Amino acid sequence: MTESDLPPVPMLPGRWGDPARAAELPESLRAALAAFGVSAPGDPVALDDVALPDPLDEALAVRVRAIVGDEGVRLDRDARLAHTRGYSTPDLLRLRAGDATQAPDAVVTPSDHETVVALLELCASARIAVVPFGGGTSVVGGLAPQRGRFAAVIALDLSAIDHAEEVDEVARTVRLGAGLRTVAAEAHLAARGWTLGHFPQSYEGATIGGHAATRSAGQASAGYGRFDEMVVGLRLATPTGTLEVGTAPRSAAGPDLRQLVLGSEGALGVITEVRVVVRPRPEARVYEGWRFASFDAGVEALRSLAQDGPLPTVLRLSDEAETAVNLADPAGAGGPAPTGALAITGLEGAADGVARTREQLERRMRDLGAEPLGTAPGESWRTGRYHAPYLRDALLDAGAMVETLETATFWSDLARLRHAVTDTLVASLTAHDSPPIVLCHVSHVYPSGASLYFTVACRQDDDPVDTWFEAKDAVGQAIRAVGATITHHHGVGTDHTAPYAAEIGPLGTRILAAVKDEVDPEGVLNPGVLIQARGGHSG
Amino acid sequence: MTESDLPPVPMLPGRWGDPARAAELPESLRAALAAFGVSAPGDPVALDDVALPDPLDEALAVRVRAIVGDEGVRLDRDARLAHTRGYSTPDLLRLRAGDATQAPDAVVTPSDHETVVALLELCASARIAVVPFGGGTSVVGGLAPQRGRFAAVIALDLSAIDHAEEVDEVARTVRLGAGLRTVAAEAHLAARGWTLGHFPQSYEGATIGGHAATRSAGQASAGYGRFDEMVVGLRLATPTGTLEVGTAPRSAAGPDLRQLVLGSEGALGVITEVRVVVRPRPEARVYEGWRFASFDAGVEALRSLAQDGPLPTVLRLSDEAETAVNLADPAGAGGPAPTGALAITGLEGAADGVARTREQLERRMRDLGAEPLGTAPGESWRTGRYHAPYLRDALLDAGAMVETLETATFWSDLARLRHAVTDTLVASLTAHDSPPIVLCHVSHVYPSGASLYFTVACRQDDDPVDTWFEAKDAVGQAIRAVGATITHHHGVGTDHTAPYAAEIGPLGTRILAAVKDEVDPEGVLNPGVLIQARGGHSG
Repeated sequence: MTESDLPPVPMLPGRWGDPARAAELPESLRAALAAFGVSAPGDPVALDDVALPDPLDEALAVRVRAIVGDEGVRLDRDARLAHTRGYSTPDLLRLRAGDATQAPDAVVTPSDHETVVALLELCASARIAVVPFGGGTSVVGGLAPQRGRFAAVIALDLSAIDHAEEVDEVARTVRLGAGLRTVAAEAHLAARGWTLGHFPQSYEGATIGGHAATRSAGQASAGYGRFDEMVVGLRLATPTGTLEVGTAPRSAAGPDLRQLVLGSEGALGVITEVRVVVRPRPEARVYEGWRFASFDAGVEALRSLAQDGPLPTVLRLSDEAETAVNLADPAGAGGPAPTGALAITGLEGAADGVARTREQLERRMRDLGAEPLGTAPGESWRTGRYHAPYLRDALLDAGAMVETLETATFWSDLARLRHAVTDTLVASLTAHDSPPIVLCHVSHVYPSGASLYFTVACRQDDDPVDTWFEAKDAVGQAIRAVGATITHHHGVGTDHTAPYAAEIGPLGTRILAAVKDEVDPEGVLNPGVLIQARGGHSG
Repeated sequence: MTESDLPPVPMLPGRWGDPARAAELPESLRAALAAFGVSAPGDPVALDDVALPDPLDEALAVRVRAIVGDEGVRLDRDARLAHTRGYSTPDLLRLRAGDATQAPDAVVTPSDHETVVALLELCASARIAVVPFGGGTSVVGGLAPQRGRFAAVIALDLSAIDHAEEVDEVARTVRLGAGLRTVAAEAHLAARGWTLGHFPQSYEGATIGGHAATRSAGQASAGYGRFDEMVVGLRLATPTGTLEVGTAPRSAAGPDLRQLVLGSEGALGVITEVRVVVRPRPEARVYEGWRFASFDAGVEALRSLAQDGPLPTVLRLSDEAETAVNLADPAGAGGPAPTGALAITGLEGAADGVARTREQLERRMRDLGAEPLGTAPGESWRTGRYHAPYLRDALLDAGAMVETLETATFWSDLARLRHAVTDTLVASLTAHDSPPIVLCHVSHVYPSGASLYFTVACRQDDDPVDTWFEAKDAVGQAIRAVGATITHHHGVGTDHTAPYAAEIGPLGTRILAAVKDEVDPEGVLNPGVLIQARGGHSG
């Protein structure tokens, strides 16, 4: 199985993906949870019983239909519920508790760029807040509109802008509609011998435009690059016009406006199309596991590979705790003994290149102290890599609170960052009588630094959402104190606006607010996401 | 000789670099010029006879001295002349003609970031235009202030902000003051075993901050990356505060504000410090020449290397005309026969890696149709690479008009771009009875495209500056028609503002103007460079 064979999953509200693939918790894990004080909560509120706010006012609906057509406007309960928030654990817990107060008033599905511009012009004049919606997989509140002073809130569903042009085989680029599901993009490219190589954990649900708007980093970023590095051109719709950028791979013509749009999370406009780099579909893949004596030893080895090579396509390292827990995962059975730190390397590419790099890599990994564990743990990781969100649903069912967060910094601060985040999580959650297990891995490496990805599990207390956000706020401050970034690939959303403002400082915040005021003077674009616009209209 | 052994050159007004290294034109070239209708013009106006505008008003000078100290303010003729414009051919021709009307009223040399901020605050309140000045090597009018409505114009000389911190050997980064000469930065790093690997043609004169402000691309960009790719953090001074960015190598925390500052050419603030990636000083270097049957065949080969590897550290390809002219260059004697297209490859790095890549490269180059010419043409290029600006001075002395321009686009449009630029130059200059020789080379490659660098030579007519700008304007329109970028690494300056505005469109222009209005509401920062600020204060 490779990524282009995976079907798009349904992405129904409240649970991840395809119900047929729901995870079963092994009995051993249930027992472990019980020992940790976790007990199953009551059943979630049935979706049919979740209360929604009123749909879009009919007078406004008439105006919206005049632009996108009747079939492009849905006011029904199912559509609105399916566009309520994203897939963070707080998002899921709120829906389980019957809270859909942030459902949009309508789901609007324009089918081309010009219609998006016209729709945004209407929304600005009618003071309708607009939440651009791709795959709906945000885990940072990127789809949680702040209704504030607005007359209404609509989800701007991009699913009808899903064109996939023919590949420019000379430049090795392709133009893709923002609403195209990543799975569909891979299928389109695979049929022609190409790949994007962009495989984030949200792969089965996410869209091309979503990756661009949030600076997604696929699990194979070491080899294929981050999504923001793949984008060589894009088209942005705003209430005050269109921006098209991308005249060359690189340019000295002023600031790189692509990099101003990428990561803007719908707050500065709606990306409707990107031109992205493609690569030949790999002839060969080799995924392998390695054991280091400790996480710290593994980090030194990853740094060496990132700085001096050979750099594999995929390169990850779990800490001791995650390495041990990995064995409790059915998908990891038969893996390494639960000591030390497990690294995964993946090589993809032309057959001769993969063979040559594998030889270099094995020599280098042994020199760096790694014990080779063979392809079993590598394949186990590769084939199980999209399983975690299913497992989370099962754990939430069982009464566990499970969530992830991530950050990045320079190699010289990485150990300090890891300890600061871990210590803060343990202190904050323990204060709520919910002592956590904190697992950590390095998921992305660069010559000058790396990202850290944390998985946190504890019991659900009486108010797990508030308890989690309190811990998350404390972590944000700890990350800031180290000088690291609040997010390496999840984005800012509404959850990170405060630490993000601290990270870029008052002048950085003013610059973004000035850009927003210029392109979106009414502030209708994703209010409360990324930045709090001046004038406080999103409060 | 390697780059870190080169001394900084004096950079006196009107001629490039060290007078002791001035080029002599060979007799054969003089004869060729005469055959081309080129005849020596009268002697340039002596620098002592060049007329300057009045220096800074004493009342303002007192206020500036109060901030930077007496020794930080120079009103003398020599200092002002040395900060007049840059090193484009029109800049040199104007000074030769005795025109220094764009000399700054004063040269101000603050010694730290806080002083720059205070100075900018004063300039905003006193309506003094500020031209940030690094090495003074702009070739696009980046140092040509538009006095407009301002009370005065000062050059903000960054040479006193030239600190070089110790290398962070774990992250492999270093913090460097913006005014540090690149040559001094290399010497600092070489003594510790590191290199930036950034060697643009302006290397002997340019500064670190200048590279950042203009998105410089060194000749070894294929291996070491462009300067904008090396910058992981920076500090920017503006009249309304300081921006510090760079918490991680990469982040999903909103738009990448580094990429908004890089390339802003002093119009959005003054970069005072950058944190840049460093690499181990190479143990080995191999520079070689190769001949392709034609430029088009060579382009196909470069594309193959850029897309599928092996990618050398340096990779260049001259067209047939440049290949032939190369032999008239004394530094190129003993090179290839003057047919086909000459490519240069350079490999730098650890000895074993260079040896391995050289083997792969040779095999691949032969497969791609290249005839190996050995190391002589490679070494000739490497050691002669900083010679061209000296040669230009000698050619201007002899009455030739010589200038360069550059652009970039995607591989699929590269041939069309080359012909559009060449045809436009020939048509425009021939209409002025100055038929040109147009040489072209590929200087930088990426997986999806490449840059084209043109050298143009013709006779100086009665008004060579106007004739050249007319040709340049026509080229700008031709580049736009192809959809390419107006500059790959020279920058926008004042020379490219019109085609740049067309390239980013009305919304892109509004976005930059909004950022400028926010950080620099009085518009004192480099007026007329990059964009024409709203309200037309730079006219």
